[in-house]
Amino acid sequence: MGTSMKAIVKQHAGPGAELKQVPIPQIGPHEVLIQVKATSICGTDVHIYTWDAWAESRVKAPMVFGHEFSGIVVDVGSEVAGIELGDHVSAETHIVCHQCLQCRTGQYHICQNTQILGVDFSGCFAEFVKMPAENIWKNPEEMPFEHASIQEPMGNAVHTVLAGPVSGKTVAVVGCGPIGLMAVAVARASGATDVIAMDINPYRLELAKRVFASLTIHTQQEDPVKTVMERTGGTGVEVVCEMSGHPVAIQQSLEMLTNGGRMSILSLPTKPVQLDITNQIVFKGVTVQGITGRKMFETWRQTSSFLHSGQVDVTPLLTHTLPLEEFAQGFDLMIAGQCGKVVLIP
Amino acid sequence: MGTSMKAIVKQHAGPGAELKQVPIPQIGPHEVLIQVKATSICGTDVHIYTWDAWAESRVKAPMVFGHEFSGIVVDVGSEVAGIELGDHVSAETHIVCHQCLQCRTGQYHICQNTQILGVDFSGCFAEFVKMPAENIWKNPEEMPFEHASIQEPMGNAVHTVLAGPVSGKTVAVVGCGPIGLMAVAVARASGATDVIAMDINPYRLELAKRVFASLTIHTQQEDPVKTVMERTGGTGVEVVCEMSGHPVAIQQSLEMLTNGGRMSILSLPTKPVQLDITNQIVFKGVTVQGITGRKMFETWRQTSSFLHSGQVDVTPLLTHTLPLEEFAQGFDLMIAGQCGKVVLIP
Amino acid sequence: MGTSMKAIVKQHAGPGAELKQVPIPQIGPHEVLIQVKATSICGTDVHIYTWDAWAESRVKAPMVFGHEFSGIVVDVGSEVAGIELGDHVSAETHIVCHQCLQCRTGQYHICQNTQILGVDFSGCFAEFVKMPAENIWKNPEEMPFEHASIQEPMGNAVHTVLAGPVSGKTVAVVGCGPIGLMAVAVARASGATDVIAMDINPYRLELAKRVFASLTIHTQQEDPVKTVMERTGGTGVEVVCEMSGHPVAIQQSLEMLTNGGRMSILSLPTKPVQLDITNQIVFKGVTVQGITGRKMFETWRQTSSFLHSGQVDVTPLLTHTLPLEEFAQGFDLMIAGQCGKVVLIP
Amino acid sequence: MGTSMKAIVKQHAGPGAELKQVPIPQIGPHEVLIQVKATSICGTDVHIYTWDAWAESRVKAPMVFGHEFSGIVVDVGSEVAGIELGDHVSAETHIVCHQCLQCRTGQYHICQNTQILGVDFSGCFAEFVKMPAENIWKNPEEMPFEHASIQEPMGNAVHTVLAGPVSGKTVAVVGCGPIGLMAVAVARASGATDVIAMDINPYRLELAKRVFASLTIHTQQEDPVKTVMERTGGTGVEVVCEMSGHPVAIQQSLEMLTNGGRMSILSLPTKPVQLDITNQIVFKGVTVQGITGRKMFETWRQTSSFLHSGQVDVTPLLTHTLPLEEFAQGFDLMIAGQCGKVVLIP
Repeated sequence: MGTSMKAIVKQHAGPGAELKQVPIPQIGPHEVLIQVKATSICGTDVHIYTWDAWAESRVKAPMVFGHEFSGIVVDVGSEVAGIELGDHVSAETHIVCHQCLQCRTGQYHICQNTQILGVDFSGCFAEFVKMPAENIWKNPEEMPFEHASIQEPMGNAVHTVLAGPVSGKTVAVVGCGPIGLMAVAVARASGATDVIAMDINPYRLELAKRVFASLTIHTQQEDPVKTVMERTGGTGVEVVCEMSGHPVAIQQSLEMLTNGGRMSILSLPTKPVQLDITNQIVFKGVTVQGITGRKMFETWRQTSSFLHSGQVDVTPLLTHTLPLEEFAQGFDLMIAGQCGKVVLIP
Repeated sequence: MGTSMKAIVKQHAGPGAELKQVPIPQIGPHEVLIQVKATSICGTDVHIYTWDAWAESRVKAPMVFGHEFSGIVVDVGSEVAGIELGDHVSAETHIVCHQCLQCRTGQYHICQNTQILGVDFSGCFAEFVKMPAENIWKNPEEMPFEHASIQEPMGNAVHTVLAGPVSGKTVAVVGCGPIGLMAVAVARASGATDVIAMDINPYRLELAKRVFASLTIHTQQEDPVKTVMERTGGTGVEVVCEMSGHPVAIQQSLEMLTNGGRMSILSLPTKPVQLDITNQIVFKGVTVQGITGRKMFETWRQTSSFLHSGQVDVTPLLTHTLPLEEFAQGFDLMIAGQCGKVVLIP
Repeated sequence: MGTSMKAIVKQHAGPGAELKQVPIPQIGPHEVLIQVKATSICGTDVHIYTWDAWAESRVKAPMVFGHEFSGIVVDVGSEVAGIELGDHVSAETHIVCHQCLQCRTGQYHICQNTQILGVDFSGCFAEFVKMPAENIWKNPEEMPFEHASIQEPMGNAVHTVLAGPVSGKTVAVVGCGPIGLMAVAVARASGATDVIAMDINPYRLELAKRVFASLTIHTQQEDPVKTVMERTGGTGVEVVCEMSGHPVAIQQSLEMLTNGGRMSILSLPTKPVQLDITNQIVFKGVTVQGITGRKMFETWRQTSSFLHSGQVDVTPLLTHTLPLEEFAQGFDLMIAGQCGKVVLIP
Repeated sequence: MGTSMKAIVKQHAGPGAELKQVPIPQIGPHEVLIQVKATSICGTDVHIYTWDAWAESRVKAPMVFGHEFSGIVVDVGSEVAGIELGDHVSAETHIVCHQCLQCRTGQYHICQNTQILGVDFSGCFAEFVKMPAENIWKNPEEMPFEHASIQEPMGNAVHTVLAGPVSGKTVAVVGCGPIGLMAVAVARASGATDVIAMDINPYRLELAKRVFASLTIHTQQEDPVKTVMERTGGTGVEVVCEMSGHPVAIQQSLEMLTNGGRMSILSLPTKPVQLDITNQIVFKGVTVQGITGRKMFETWRQTSSFLHSGQVDVTPLLTHTLPLEEFAQGFDLMIAGQCGKVVLIP
């Protein structure tokens, strides 16, 4: 192991990225260094790559980005306990402050001062990455690196789906990007008896079927509210996982929800959304939940157990594996929506 | 007891109401007849009285209106069990279908086919009212009729406040109409350690202090978000009870809510409201609940216990008691916001 | 349809039963008459058949017993709404009072005055049975009668398993009688990632594997606590469903439970059981729940959805179908433990 | 500040304790040193003082004991953030491992490897005490040291009472030692509408009245189950906080609990207890919870808010304040049960 490594770097404020040699990170006493074996592309990475308004406002170039990964521990800080060289690991990407009310009451996922790997500090699209020891999640050695890499986004799906009961219930997943697709798989594996997947992308609706959606709806070709109402005898679904961020889809989500239902929103609409609070929330006694991050580390435990036990099989969603050098092709696939998860191998 | 009674009647589609003689209702085998001893004016009654767009669309004149009451049972249908002549009673005003999914799963308060006393069928601004036996709630004989009459709206406050934990928490009550004021009292009596009441009506902010608000904010005279943030060290409140229905107040409610907080909405905004879902709901991991009606009859049990035990004292909120004949004065007080609850005595 | 029907009757206080002709029940205005198409034998029926101390104390001979069934509606009382001749139905077997605190607050399954079909009044081991309309649960026409018949006991399993979260968790099912076996299937279908089934009956442990137990333990051949602790790295399981009623098994259940775990007990130990409250409940922060009946009708909805969607397949557990006349053979199988569910066809 | 301090030391394995000079603790980089301003006596300290079987098995002499305290920070380790010299503080007394499943999932209060201040390592019956920074809870400067000192045991009461809803409910507190008395105050302040306190000690039943018990029962002078059943119209209470540890009281607690009720046990019975699981837990659908420690730090936040807001007034329970030197008198009061909390001032 030398002193430099290859990494994908956002070199300048603006679109694109470069494969470069950069120094291998130095770890502090509470940190560990991981050799990255697989790293997957998130929608957030696409925002940084294409350099939209959010990226402009948040990210400081030059920076290595990327935050989903799995790898092997190659160095351990002097004060770290319970992590050994050679451990197979992934990492929670939110670094929390331990000082705010939320941290003090164990709600780390909504820390008031969260810092994010690959967004606020140097990321994992690289041969090596360092992380605080407390963020490390150990993987079983027999778990393939590609599967282990996607636990972070799958954790978002798990957090969203399991934010309330789904067993024996009807669930709509609105928006079938990679996390939406994982939500379909998780809902089905958690006992949902009807899982309706919606999108406008036929490729991804096809993937939804492969992870056991009981029905898929192309929302430009049919009215999703009408279809759901007919299918449920006029009652509506009991749970909506909102993964699209589209204002019309959010309004439809409320309309297709039965009285007393739950809408859990993981998506990030780019503008304020008009909601008919009176008729769609109050009179229906509906609950709307914002979902962010993963519960530390309850969500990781659930996610890891799903994968390790085979209760959830994400194989159909791991559609593309590329060498790190071919990252541009991976981003093109993501932008075109012609993929499930894209995994890069450093 | 003759065959006719005095009642307040919405005689024609349009503003106003008349005191008239109408027939005493005939009860069926599953119903009871109650002599009304006290009946209180709800905001909904004001909508019917002033005949706004909602009333125009929903209410069929001529009709006796009014739905909050207490009284004494004077007749009992042949198939009614457990209710006796002379019982002191109030009634749940929502008649439910027992057939829809929500009814079948015990969520009667969000029945898909709810019919409301004094809105969809003949009400209680009268000397007598009939109700299905299953809607009857028995009152302790020693409970004053004025107190017993307001259990229905107080139940809304109880349902809203206790839709999640409040003990040891900071609570904002946004909007201090009669139900908002009752929410202040209930939150305080349920262990909330800081209860901040907000309105633009000095009379009602004064009443909020009398039911133990720890702080009142006149939201036109100071910025409620700024004040709440300063008071909570930048963290925000843990619970908001939204009782105003005003779009700006709803947006401020989300802004003043801490990460992971709960906003329970009982109000009925007249138009769709723009919400910053990304920053105020998703990133903060917030829960927004629509609240309607009262849980049957868990909310009634809680409300009755609060009053009967003295744990909640609503005396300061019973500001006006008038003979039924002087209903117009009662409505004027309600419209002017110069009252707590107005009780009419037939 | 004549005026008499064949039925299995507990004719005298004492062991055994007789197949007899008895009058077809007369229905009242709120009742329906069902032609029984399938009726299954419960452990409770075995108690009545063998006439143990509990049966002696509770059941009044002569009486038709049996309470699990499915069938077709052949008569409908004059005041019944929403049920038609020809409907395929099963029924909740607990008739509740609607007057006690629990009924009034929607917790019908723990009504203080529950009366049970086939225990407190005439049952369904017969060609016809009558039930109050409110107890009727409609089945999809395409659901086989044998499957529809076992929804009542399967509802016990569903109620027990789903009395808390299981998705992503480790679950032990202690006792693999028919309901225990259904609990294995339901836990697995609801996302439990490790479901360990325990019994002393090899036949039933084999059935447990067929409904996807991830491990079976013969508790006389190996120490279940030791095996569970080794399998979980010393941590223990997160959920125990206690279906055995055996004092030692209950103590072991607590021992194998991890800190903060849940033990839900559906079984009915015949004597008081000694529990090490300090070490096994308090220091471990454990929750122990008593489970009785089915939530009306949330549990029915879940159970019906599991079967109808194919999310739970109970086919391996429907081991024996016999004509009603051969009931004695069915009881022999149940007593010997050499069966899953035994279904009788009138 | 010199190098030695006075402290109460369990010098030898056996009854009693000595006031001695011992070295002031040396802090590490993650620790803080606190000058103790008030320290209160817990029942656990009495076990150590009288040297019962539990103390014999757990405590290693010589050791400074005591674990409830408040004080002022006088030294701060090099890696500590967010704590300043002069801060008024108390401390969570459970030091947790951060490695076990429970710690990793945020359930620190049930860590599998908990170490306790004054039990497993040197305590706070002394002029100074050191603690890990993460265990520190900051107190408002205006909070009296005596009040701040009892937050740890009051946290046990808060954790027990608020382990489920109490607002609008009937609550029995069984056992009125200091924590039971605090549970009475917390239940009342949290909206319980009937709080029934039980003990065999008239002094403490008198204190229960002073913190707003609505009824006190001397359980040797009247049958508590009979009294509760009469008072509740045969229904029973909805919540029992078991604080006595006595087998008969635990059995009575279950008997007085209504169907669907909750019994939360904080007490530590010295032997296994026989429970009628079938009739008192299963058929009644009851939940039994073991409660240990305080949720970190949700319980501290609630407790601190109760005291700081005046929502709970513990003044009547702070019956004795003594100089540290007079500790023997404090223990005598505790052993005799003739006190609420006894506070020692170093």
